[in-house]
Amino acid sequence: MKRGNVLIAQGGGPTAVINQSLIGAVLEARKFPQVDRVYGALHGVSGIVNEDFLDLTQETTHNLELVAATPGSALGSTREKPDKAYCGEILKVLIAHNIRYFFYIGGNDSSDTLRIVQEFAKKKSYELISIHVPKTIDNDLVINDHTPGFPSAAKFVASAFSGVNLDNRALPGIYVGIVMGRHAGFLTAASALGRKHRDDGPHLIYLPERNFKISKFLSDVKEVYNRLGRCVIAVSEGIHDTKGNLIVSKLQKDIERDAHGNVQLSGMGALADLLTEKIKTNLGIKRVRGDTFGYLQRSFLGVVSEVDQREAREVGEKACQFAFWNGASGSITIHRCGDYSVEYRLDPLVAVAGKTKTMADEFISKDGTNVTNEFRMYLTPLLGSNMPEAFRLRAPFVEKKLKK
Amino acid sequence: MKRGNVLIAQGGGPTAVINQSLIGAVLEARKFPQVDRVYGALHGVSGIVNEDFLDLTQETTHNLELVAATPGSALGSTREKPDKAYCGEILKVLIAHNIRYFFYIGGNDSSDTLRIVQEFAKKKSYELISIHVPKTIDNDLVINDHTPGFPSAAKFVASAFSGVNLDNRALPGIYVGIVMGRHAGFLTAASALGRKHRDDGPHLIYLPERNFKISKFLSDVKEVYNRLGRCVIAVSEGIHDTKGNLIVSKLQKDIERDAHGNVQLSGMGALADLLTEKIKTNLGIKRVRGDTFGYLQRSFLGVVSEVDQREAREVGEKACQFAFWNGASGSITIHRCGDYSVEYRLDPLVAVAGKTKTMADEFISKDGTNVTNEFRMYLTPLLGSNMPEAFRLRAPFVEKKLKK
Repeated sequence: MKRGNVLIAQGGGPTAVINQSLIGAVLEARKFPQVDRVYGALHGVSGIVNEDFLDLTQETTHNLELVAATPGSALGSTREKPDKAYCGEILKVLIAHNIRYFFYIGGNDSSDTLRIVQEFAKKKSYELISIHVPKTIDNDLVINDHTPGFPSAAKFVASAFSGVNLDNRALPGIYVGIVMGRHAGFLTAASALGRKHRDDGPHLIYLPERNFKISKFLSDVKEVYNRLGRCVIAVSEGIHDTKGNLIVSKLQKDIERDAHGNVQLSGMGALADLLTEKIKTNLGIKRVRGDTFGYLQRSFLGVVSEVDQREAREVGEKACQFAFWNGASGSITIHRCGDYSVEYRLDPLVAVAGKTKTMADEFISKDGTNVTNEFRMYLTPLLGSNMPEAFRLRAPFVEKKLKK
Repeated sequence: MKRGNVLIAQGGGPTAVINQSLIGAVLEARKFPQVDRVYGALHGVSGIVNEDFLDLTQETTHNLELVAATPGSALGSTREKPDKAYCGEILKVLIAHNIRYFFYIGGNDSSDTLRIVQEFAKKKSYELISIHVPKTIDNDLVINDHTPGFPSAAKFVASAFSGVNLDNRALPGIYVGIVMGRHAGFLTAASALGRKHRDDGPHLIYLPERNFKISKFLSDVKEVYNRLGRCVIAVSEGIHDTKGNLIVSKLQKDIERDAHGNVQLSGMGALADLLTEKIKTNLGIKRVRGDTFGYLQRSFLGVVSEVDQREAREVGEKACQFAFWNGASGSITIHRCGDYSVEYRLDPLVAVAGKTKTMADEFISKDGTNVTNEFRMYLTPLLGSNMPEAFRLRAPFVEKKLKK
């Protein structure tokens, strides 16, 4: 393999375990003799075009391990989506710094950036190996059984719903929790893993894989409330009507769009407030509460799946191994074998780039407001060993004396 | 002491450790020979007037221990605030069931209910011992150094801000996090304990102990943003203007009030959306996000301070010990000795009932947007031993080659 430097960057939304992938790659890369230096680019592609690099060869192993266990993107991230000209600038910088191995930890957009850069390098006959290291809490990368970052976020969401279910049981009413996930409902569906007892919430789950109708929503809520005297509801931020229009955009005057043209969904309580208002007005129920889980679900310290940690670490290591032993560019993908282990493969960048996976039909119940046991089987091993469990009193009732 | 039955109830908002107090009292009460049965009232005072009692004498010790470690009020709670007639009804039920020991786990309203019931019992010469067991995430009970439930909620808030600070550092912008606390800012102030590095957020903290001015808020945010390129802000849901009008109520048309006449604050994203909108409009900053922590902060499974667990357990036990050994009614209070241990005392119900403690001036920085080291010293021992810590890369920069 070509002797030279390694460059690693992190893109898109941070996760609880994205630094495991970074550190996995850094520590592994530092072992190979053809590697002179291991650089980290600050704030993803924007740090590359600005040449904002840290020399991670000069970082202690001890501190790298501590950073690995810290959520958030330690190098900083970016929402920039490079076009062809931008990718040309990236390549210029890679050449100037003799970068021969380029690892980008991110989602399908990051994969697409690598694809373009790699094409340009080939045209210029610049020997470059580009590896996409998978990461996203949305779990929406194709080919992959699941994506690092998702299991820990799913654990947070399941734990959160387990807790709000207890709260709602103590003070009955309606509770709406809004969960991240623009096109893929995996994270919202994870709320189901917070259930234990027969009447535990979430009692209704609304996913972007199904069209949302407010009238159906209200009759669903009414049915549960009449039956249980309470109702806990998990709603994906990406729910939309039959025409694909986002429910939240029906309310907002000024729609904020990011560099990818996506409507801003997180970082505001509008959808929860809209739905709770509809319930109050139409069903006449008084205690109706809504929370938007927001940024807590992807960065919370102390709620991490150890399976997720392990796999995030390994995809970082595998990036190096595929690069240095096989000399191939591509995207690391995770495949489930048995119940439960995984293996890692290298797929072509083009196979992952810019594509979005959503929940399979077999994971969603027929009525569209619940998950199936298939999904529970799918998610359970990813959450790791220490999911907290809720217990109830089971003492007998005391006979009434006054019986008024 | 009079032979008879024990009745335990839980009132107000659930906490992460309120069941420790319940189980502490149940297990201790079951040891005393003058106790025939230990009953639990469902949903606080409303379960008492309806005679909805569980016989907790017939619950396994094993399951009681599991329930103790579960957040939420296992008996169910209530927001009802009994008037004198209601308290009269409570006493009738206590007499009918030969309840001689009445323990109510709750905040200052629960303490007030006990005070009235106890007065009525005295008038009727009915031998009754009433003990208030302290609980509130707001930490607003007078006399007490702190209140069970607060430390675990504080740990959640500190952890959450530590995480969103990492997220905000990776993708810079403005982040506003709304924290519970109507009159007392303790929980919002706890966000400061999530900081570690010099430039960590929250960079600004707004408490209900200080008047809130939107113009001052905007200039504060601008100053931090200009200096750091980002700003993380912790805001109490109870912030108000100089006239005492809630900031959130400036926005809402329909204000919801509870049985205590309080404006509904949690369970909606209005305040966060109002503040982020103001920042966007007035400061022209694009990436502005707001989250309302909502119900997650008082019920989250897996985020509990072991100091809080221990003390919540002990106040439940102490209720029994004061009742059975001293035969006195009152409110259990927590007092700090040294650095750090506590002792428990029994104060008159009237000393705690209906009163609200707020943050002392020495806990709030002069400019009103930060906490002091006094506060950090106060809160640190309450959070327990396993606060997660964030680590950063400290590698040197690489020299630029293209220097564009």
